[in-house]
Amino acid sequence: MLSFECDYSEGAHEKVLARLLETNMEQLSGYGSDKYCEQAKEKIRMACGCPDAQIFFLMGGTQTNEVVIDAMLQSYEGVVAAKTGHVSVHEAGAIEHSGHKVLTLPEYQGKMDAEDLESLLSEFWSDENHEHMVFPGMVYISHPTEYGTLYSEEELKKLSGVCRRYKIPLYMDGARLGYGLMSSETDVTLPKIAEYCDVFYIGGTKVGALCGEAVVFTKRNMPVHFLTIVKQHGALLAKGRVLGIQFDTLFTDDLYFKISRHAVEMAEYMKSGLLKKGVRFYLESPTNQQFIILENSEMEELGKRAAFSFWEKLDEEHTVIRLATSWATKKESIDRLLELF
Amino acid sequence: MLSFECDYSEGAHEKVLARLLETNMEQLSGYGSDKYCEQAKEKIRMACGCPDAQIFFLMGGTQTNEVVIDAMLQSYEGVVAAKTGHVSVHEAGAIEHSGHKVLTLPEYQGKMDAEDLESLLSEFWSDENHEHMVFPGMVYISHPTEYGTLYSEEELKKLSGVCRRYKIPLYMDGARLGYGLMSSETDVTLPKIAEYCDVFYIGGTKVGALCGEAVVFTKRNMPVHFLTIVKQHGALLAKGRVLGIQFDTLFTDDLYFKISRHAVEMAEYMKSGLLKKGVRFYLESPTNQQFIILENSEMEELGKRAAFSFWEKLDEEHTVIRLATSWATKKESIDRLLELF
Amino acid sequence: MLSFECDYSEGAHEKVLARLLETNMEQLSGYGSDKYCEQAKEKIRMACGCPDAQIFFLMGGTQTNEVVIDAMLQSYEGVVAAKTGHVSVHEAGAIEHSGHKVLTLPEYQGKMDAEDLESLLSEFWSDENHEHMVFPGMVYISHPTEYGTLYSEEELKKLSGVCRRYKIPLYMDGARLGYGLMSSETDVTLPKIAEYCDVFYIGGTKVGALCGEAVVFTKRNMPVHFLTIVKQHGALLAKGRVLGIQFDTLFTDDLYFKISRHAVEMAEYMKSGLLKKGVRFYLESPTNQQFIILENSEMEELGKRAAFSFWEKLDEEHTVIRLATSWATKKESIDRLLELF
Amino acid sequence: MLSFECDYSEGAHEKVLARLLETNMEQLSGYGSDKYCEQAKEKIRMACGCPDAQIFFLMGGTQTNEVVIDAMLQSYEGVVAAKTGHVSVHEAGAIEHSGHKVLTLPEYQGKMDAEDLESLLSEFWSDENHEHMVFPGMVYISHPTEYGTLYSEEELKKLSGVCRRYKIPLYMDGARLGYGLMSSETDVTLPKIAEYCDVFYIGGTKVGALCGEAVVFTKRNMPVHFLTIVKQHGALLAKGRVLGIQFDTLFTDDLYFKISRHAVEMAEYMKSGLLKKGVRFYLESPTNQQFIILENSEMEELGKRAAFSFWEKLDEEHTVIRLATSWATKKESIDRLLELF
Repeated sequence: MLSFECDYSEGAHEKVLARLLETNMEQLSGYGSDKYCEQAKEKIRMACGCPDAQIFFLMGGTQTNEVVIDAMLQSYEGVVAAKTGHVSVHEAGAIEHSGHKVLTLPEYQGKMDAEDLESLLSEFWSDENHEHMVFPGMVYISHPTEYGTLYSEEELKKLSGVCRRYKIPLYMDGARLGYGLMSSETDVTLPKIAEYCDVFYIGGTKVGALCGEAVVFTKRNMPVHFLTIVKQHGALLAKGRVLGIQFDTLFTDDLYFKISRHAVEMAEYMKSGLLKKGVRFYLESPTNQQFIILENSEMEELGKRAAFSFWEKLDEEHTVIRLATSWATKKESIDRLLELF
Repeated sequence: MLSFECDYSEGAHEKVLARLLETNMEQLSGYGSDKYCEQAKEKIRMACGCPDAQIFFLMGGTQTNEVVIDAMLQSYEGVVAAKTGHVSVHEAGAIEHSGHKVLTLPEYQGKMDAEDLESLLSEFWSDENHEHMVFPGMVYISHPTEYGTLYSEEELKKLSGVCRRYKIPLYMDGARLGYGLMSSETDVTLPKIAEYCDVFYIGGTKVGALCGEAVVFTKRNMPVHFLTIVKQHGALLAKGRVLGIQFDTLFTDDLYFKISRHAVEMAEYMKSGLLKKGVRFYLESPTNQQFIILENSEMEELGKRAAFSFWEKLDEEHTVIRLATSWATKKESIDRLLELF
Repeated sequence: MLSFECDYSEGAHEKVLARLLETNMEQLSGYGSDKYCEQAKEKIRMACGCPDAQIFFLMGGTQTNEVVIDAMLQSYEGVVAAKTGHVSVHEAGAIEHSGHKVLTLPEYQGKMDAEDLESLLSEFWSDENHEHMVFPGMVYISHPTEYGTLYSEEELKKLSGVCRRYKIPLYMDGARLGYGLMSSETDVTLPKIAEYCDVFYIGGTKVGALCGEAVVFTKRNMPVHFLTIVKQHGALLAKGRVLGIQFDTLFTDDLYFKISRHAVEMAEYMKSGLLKKGVRFYLESPTNQQFIILENSEMEELGKRAAFSFWEKLDEEHTVIRLATSWATKKESIDRLLELF
Repeated sequence: MLSFECDYSEGAHEKVLARLLETNMEQLSGYGSDKYCEQAKEKIRMACGCPDAQIFFLMGGTQTNEVVIDAMLQSYEGVVAAKTGHVSVHEAGAIEHSGHKVLTLPEYQGKMDAEDLESLLSEFWSDENHEHMVFPGMVYISHPTEYGTLYSEEELKKLSGVCRRYKIPLYMDGARLGYGLMSSETDVTLPKIAEYCDVFYIGGTKVGALCGEAVVFTKRNMPVHFLTIVKQHGALLAKGRVLGIQFDTLFTDDLYFKISRHAVEMAEYMKSGLLKKGVRFYLESPTNQQFIILENSEMEELGKRAAFSFWEKLDEEHTVIRLATSWATKKESIDRLLELF
């Protein structure tokens, strides 16, 4: 069956697998100390235009959020996120499990507004009882957001400005970062992200890797003994090579960007096809996730021929569903999908 | 350079990689719900002679220990382990990080003694202040141990008996389980382990996989909502297929056992060669890890030509080092190693 | 200076102190095992009309919330509370520190609505991704609320009904319970609370004691080894007598109820005096906390002669302040306060 | 019945209670911000000869250990303690509950040896795998120890020297500090403790107070936002006055020292009486806890007339019991006790 259910349905890009195969019998040291990890880090530093960046490879998104947030916060601090942020709803309480509150702000198509953030921070610090409350110690944003939307450079700059005024780090969850960077409608580049964010991660799991996320500390601010903290969270991979080789491949000859661009083009092609068919969109997403509104009966019918994600009920008769493309999406599949409308 | 440093220096067995390649473009559902995970579980149930076993795949050893122990203990309970147990010393405090004390017992070449365990438990329960102390809520053993040694069936049975009398689960860390099961000197089989232990894991990382451990709950005792608990620990892999396909391959045509047997034979070959050279052994290990005693100058000399693990200082002039074979060890490498003695 | 800042400005009711003095040199066993603790528990059971109730004395409100919630929730569960609930905002993240998320609902003058709760629970269980989310495992309400408001019996019954349908406990924070029970406008009695709630606490700190809260488990549902859990949270008092003697005194000859009634009468007297002066109330509170709206300049002026709590800014020119009475409030003080308006 | 079971059987010293009574109806601000807390802190600073000391009042011993240790350690650090340290065995895992391992050293009548500590630290730092282990981040000692023994100034100085070389704080649990300071055989004074320790607490619960411990940070090293950390642990008392007034009284006119001296004199009187009767001592304790060896039948007989603490079985026929004096012990009680031998 056709599937547009998510962007992690296939394994890895063929070049990634090929490289794992080629290097397979080399004897390498463990825990990320091998040469492929080093090479990958160097290539990522270049791509970020940030020669000082400190980089660490982890295995998945929730793990990365939990480890990074716990490592950077003081025990009495929480992380500020939009209500729809992945850390707020879909991580089974991993942040709270490590002792920290997620302080929520309103969301605008998944995005946080710099003014809301400013208000929260200024109100906290002017509240005479703030010592009895959780200190806002970090800001979490996702880019693209859970709704496929993107921050503009201006918006990022403002959020970053607020964070710096209040001396707390800005952290970007880049689970789908490639699909944001390669959007036709973005003015945000990897070096800009490295400039505005204190830490962010470049998602591999959803962009061509079997698994793996590259955490980038941009201001020489990697927490002391971070490897031990990672180990303590059960997040240190013995065969670190598995992550290093994958990212080394993804950041060779712009593979990460090329395959991301492909997914975006597929989404644009799908979007224009659906528009021609008169399909209503729930919101305007410039990345690989598209949200459309179907009558319930239409949805049911479609569900017999294609897989997608239920998103939310719009009203009694209508439902929002998500169609996701990825590095692996074929044009033919989209053509077949469009025929179903 | 020759390396006998550890059993996770190479990637994965070629058949494992080949299978990842073959299945790569199949669209599969996430989080371990795919058919390969199902198949792998079924094959493991067969191999364990335990049709009711509940199985969950995780990524690495420390992660598995942390998640399983935290999920099975009550908040006021700790886990009992030998002083040299991996959870006691080499997991950066992951068990304590999740809120539980590791209660330690003496070790005998890495093994726990059933009588020591019985004493600890009976003393705890007869201490009138025990409500002010950590409750011993689970027993952790590793098999093979960190010293390469093995429990006999009789010893396992005794430990299991004590645990059942006190109604606490027995948990076996099988990071190197294959190398224990294929030892020439063991009477312990996988079905026996499934009988005596309440939960154990079959190590993949050190036995032919890129990463991955298969946790086996043998008594229909998988904690309720275990997937959520795993997610909360940041340990749920999006592309669960990566683990499923690897274990499916390892448990097809006895691959796991064959490659484990190979490592044991390589260790036996190395041991007999070293004995002929008059090398002293620190202890008698029937598995893939061998511990020898070298004069410091010998050790230094050897270190120029071969990699190994420093284990501990024996006295001012002597050091214990570890030489590990694995599924990937070549006979020629051992011949070359032996020439260095 | 006059102070209506809070209800814990004085020490303890004179009878409580007298009793501490009388019993002072008796040698008693520790950790709550003394006869005064037993007596106090028995009297509380009587007052609750709940002969089976299990009771435990703790020292303060945040401590009680943290210990009770952590002890009753599974690790993957969170507690549902109104947005303004004490556990949501004013406990420095104590709930999250013990690993649990506070799931928030809208508040209506500090109260939670049974329909909102029903929606949250039914949406959670019908969400196909709920295994990736925090399970709602308990409901927290405060009575009186942080805004001095009260649930009616009907409202309590509905909340309790929803909880029972979803098989999760209903927990009432009764930091100011006496002031709720003795309100002129309530139909909720202590036995009703014991019937509808699975666990609640009777506040001592704010109602006549130096410190102390009595946790009441109403359904023989005190968590196993609760004393050990309390100890582990650093919440077990060596001289448990200090709590037992205080509660024994408060529950002798209805002292708890009489002094609570006094506070309510003082609040009513204050309210009627303020109304006569034309003061605007922010909301209608039938308990000891009264919230009034002042022009900023009025507030400043008042602040020179009397202490009160800043509550929140209403608009640019107006502020909401809280005036609290207590068991210790004197009528003369209110007369003097009223003269300032 | 006569009781020498522990040093917290009675309430508080009469002057402490009298002062609580005198100040009872004063309206004071909460959470330790009142004038009595300030006064008490000032008096303690004087007594410590440490004008810069930062002081915080908490309620009990386990709570204090948990909060102080958690607040001072990094997440990846553990605390080093003697095997018999209170934090190691009798706090229900409170330290682990807050995420930290207790790293144990051998004990010598309850004391830690500076050389053992030096070895642990130097071995840790020279272990090439130390990043996979728990970092020793703090040293915990109790003085008097759980066995009533005392460190000499020389021993303290050595421990302190090791800590400073490794840049980790030395923390002293002074639950019974008064009884140590007033021993006839000590050369350790409060100013010496303030010099050698980075943080310690002056026990109130066992030395004349209803409850309460005064934590003293001696090097301007109180963790930032300590009040919030305390609150988060559920350890912030609303009516902080209760602790402030008690310590203010105890540190007025040397009351703390005088009543401690009394307990020591009572212990000396008891010891000399028992020696005359030919009773065997388990060890030589210069403080208020005395450990004697009885034949089991003698112990049983004694148990009918006097309460004491069972300590441990010495052999099949003999048992070690503890007899504790306190500020409240009467000479007549000892005379009556001695008659029983």
